[in-house]
Amino acid sequence: MKRRYSSAFTSIGLSPIVAISEQIRSVAPVFEKSGQRFAFLQRGELADPTPDFVIDATKRALDAGHTRYPKAGGEPWFKEAVIQHMAAEHGIDDIGPENVICTYGGQEGLQLVFGLLGGGTVLAFGPAWSCVLENIFPFTGFEVDTIDLVEEQGALRVDFDELDRKLAAADVLYLNTPQNPSGKVFSREELVRIDELCRQHDVRIVSDEAYKDFVYDGREHVSPLSLGGDHIISIFTCSKAFAATGFRIGFTICRDADLIRKLTLGEYTQTAGVVPFIQRAFADVLTMDEPRRTWQSELVASLARRRDRICERLGPLFGGSLYRPEGAFYLFLNLTGLVPDAPAGEDTSDVIVQRFLDQGIAVVPGTAFGDDRYARHVRLSFSGVSDEVLEEALERMIDGVFNGQARATG
Amino acid sequence: MKRRYSSAFTSIGLSPIVAISEQIRSVAPVFEKSGQRFAFLQRGELADPTPDFVIDATKRALDAGHTRYPKAGGEPWFKEAVIQHMAAEHGIDDIGPENVICTYGGQEGLQLVFGLLGGGTVLAFGPAWSCVLENIFPFTGFEVDTIDLVEEQGALRVDFDELDRKLAAADVLYLNTPQNPSGKVFSREELVRIDELCRQHDVRIVSDEAYKDFVYDGREHVSPLSLGGDHIISIFTCSKAFAATGFRIGFTICRDADLIRKLTLGEYTQTAGVVPFIQRAFADVLTMDEPRRTWQSELVASLARRRDRICERLGPLFGGSLYRPEGAFYLFLNLTGLVPDAPAGEDTSDVIVQRFLDQGIAVVPGTAFGDDRYARHVRLSFSGVSDEVLEEALERMIDGVFNGQARATG
Repeated sequence: MKRRYSSAFTSIGLSPIVAISEQIRSVAPVFEKSGQRFAFLQRGELADPTPDFVIDATKRALDAGHTRYPKAGGEPWFKEAVIQHMAAEHGIDDIGPENVICTYGGQEGLQLVFGLLGGGTVLAFGPAWSCVLENIFPFTGFEVDTIDLVEEQGALRVDFDELDRKLAAADVLYLNTPQNPSGKVFSREELVRIDELCRQHDVRIVSDEAYKDFVYDGREHVSPLSLGGDHIISIFTCSKAFAATGFRIGFTICRDADLIRKLTLGEYTQTAGVVPFIQRAFADVLTMDEPRRTWQSELVASLARRRDRICERLGPLFGGSLYRPEGAFYLFLNLTGLVPDAPAGEDTSDVIVQRFLDQGIAVVPGTAFGDDRYARHVRLSFSGVSDEVLEEALERMIDGVFNGQARATG
Repeated sequence: MKRRYSSAFTSIGLSPIVAISEQIRSVAPVFEKSGQRFAFLQRGELADPTPDFVIDATKRALDAGHTRYPKAGGEPWFKEAVIQHMAAEHGIDDIGPENVICTYGGQEGLQLVFGLLGGGTVLAFGPAWSCVLENIFPFTGFEVDTIDLVEEQGALRVDFDELDRKLAAADVLYLNTPQNPSGKVFSREELVRIDELCRQHDVRIVSDEAYKDFVYDGREHVSPLSLGGDHIISIFTCSKAFAATGFRIGFTICRDADLIRKLTLGEYTQTAGVVPFIQRAFADVLTMDEPRRTWQSELVASLARRRDRICERLGPLFGGSLYRPEGAFYLFLNLTGLVPDAPAGEDTSDVIVQRFLDQGIAVVPGTAFGDDRYARHVRLSFSGVSDEVLEEALERMIDGVFNGQARATG
């Protein structure tokens, strides 16, 4: 048999987040036999059930007969809802239906956009979401270069000189705000400077805004779209903000209508379009006032509370150097000096993750977000856990994982 | 801006079927002002509403909370339902969950499979479905070669000598049974001979079985999977058989578990998997006894009745040479001698399609199914129309399109 396979498919691996989730399906029940509750802190989705207003909107759309072939690229009324939503929520009022495409979550948006841009070098701020590094970039033929965010006085900063140098050799900048896994929210000032450099170097910005609704302490999510220009492609998902990861719907916006038209042809070819009754449901949800607003503000408040509790409990161990996430729902912890060295011949990252698993806590290894330089990091999510389970997990973490040991302050 | 685009995206066009469907959105209302009903005979979907047992199963799945991230490649219980369905309906009882992947309709199945096989030459029986010719093959880097079915005494036959020659230069055979647009159902004997030649030439078979549930006159759908071997990849959709084109769910089966694993990585990368509550609904539907069986047998009976009525009314015009579809829900009509020549400088195919539109009938131009050699053909669908509207359309077709003219018999 002619067993030739496309290198796009053979160069990708299963995301470490998916792999660890499958591993803990067997580990968690064993741990819970001890009478304690397993803490799923690896999860990138909310523990909350999908709200009734989403379920009901979907049932109404089924009853209304939105069950036939969708229109390629998205229904006109879905695009109209996106336009209204972006104007009302983010003050972006100059986009039309020709600038919008509906996709299967943010994931298909990323895959289509990088697929269309067709290879070259993508520059990404490190640490970066494992799925783009392990799946999207190799699948679409992109080489990746990273520029690490600089931790400085409790903030994560961009090194603009390094950015300038690295953009010279890049075709595309991948920007993720709020950022997974660090929790950084890029400020308008930072985005303006980044955008100026991208324009100088003739580099497109692919802006992944999956966590746009998760910003804390009164901050504002600034979409790079608000800076204007047709070189910015912003990718959104409805998965995260509505506890609706299984609905697989999102949208991508770009002022370059020709680019959107090309994405539409690709999207039609791949899937023939997004399930129309799900489009109808989210057209309603995106433009809904109540109960959406109350539900979302309570959700964000509860996440901020969990973040605060983690920082309160773990902060002293980190000697004041613990970064307090500004958005998203993750902490990316640097455990250098807090966990013992791995025995010779063993993988540091594996040993660290195992220490957490032994305490009934699942985390994602730092290596998932940018190879070995993050071998002593883990990503801890506060989205998929109740306050009570989180409290127990923090206790076990401090006593069992860190043995109450604090990092030496320097 | 670095405006490089992937050739995969720039080589595809919008399917002529989609294009004509968008064109008639404006034409149909104008025609209906005459008081007559427009006949949408271009459609590849049923006019019938999605049955209640599908809608209800989807609502149950929503209520049961199947609203979180799916498992990459499909939920275990969806795969189990596919296995049961294939055993009960088609006697294929040697596949396991490692041989099944859930996809967004048959379309994503085709795109993933050809994407994985990664270019080369695909051989297809002509006429062939426009979407593979115009979208899937160019998007996945395949050159296409075609081998036309031979019309002989009211049957469509395979020229096995030509197949033997053409397979020598092919990497993959695309087989579609029942076939869109011809309505041919490949017999077991034909499939055995085709498979023997493919094995000799070391060529994989990609078998598109979207219309497996639409076979007439007591015929049986034979899946090439039933011939055994791990070189056959069969692609199915739940869209057609359940009037559920908007649910975007299907499945692909291959005995080569490594191939399915590679497809799973690609599917995860593209979309993160198929909407789980739709998987749950179709796991129920695929293994349901009643009301599914009664609904489907009544549907097939009504389609056979419409097919019979078309053959009865149009048959005499074709002088006995009208091919009677054995499956699917299309007729592919050769109008040579039945419509006047196009005026000089005009496109024959466009002129023919316009003659139908002038009579309030939408059809798909034959060129969509294999370029200019089908310029005098049209595809006529009997799926998206009521008996009454069909009857009126046949009347207008005979009087207005063909002017009562019969083809000279030779």
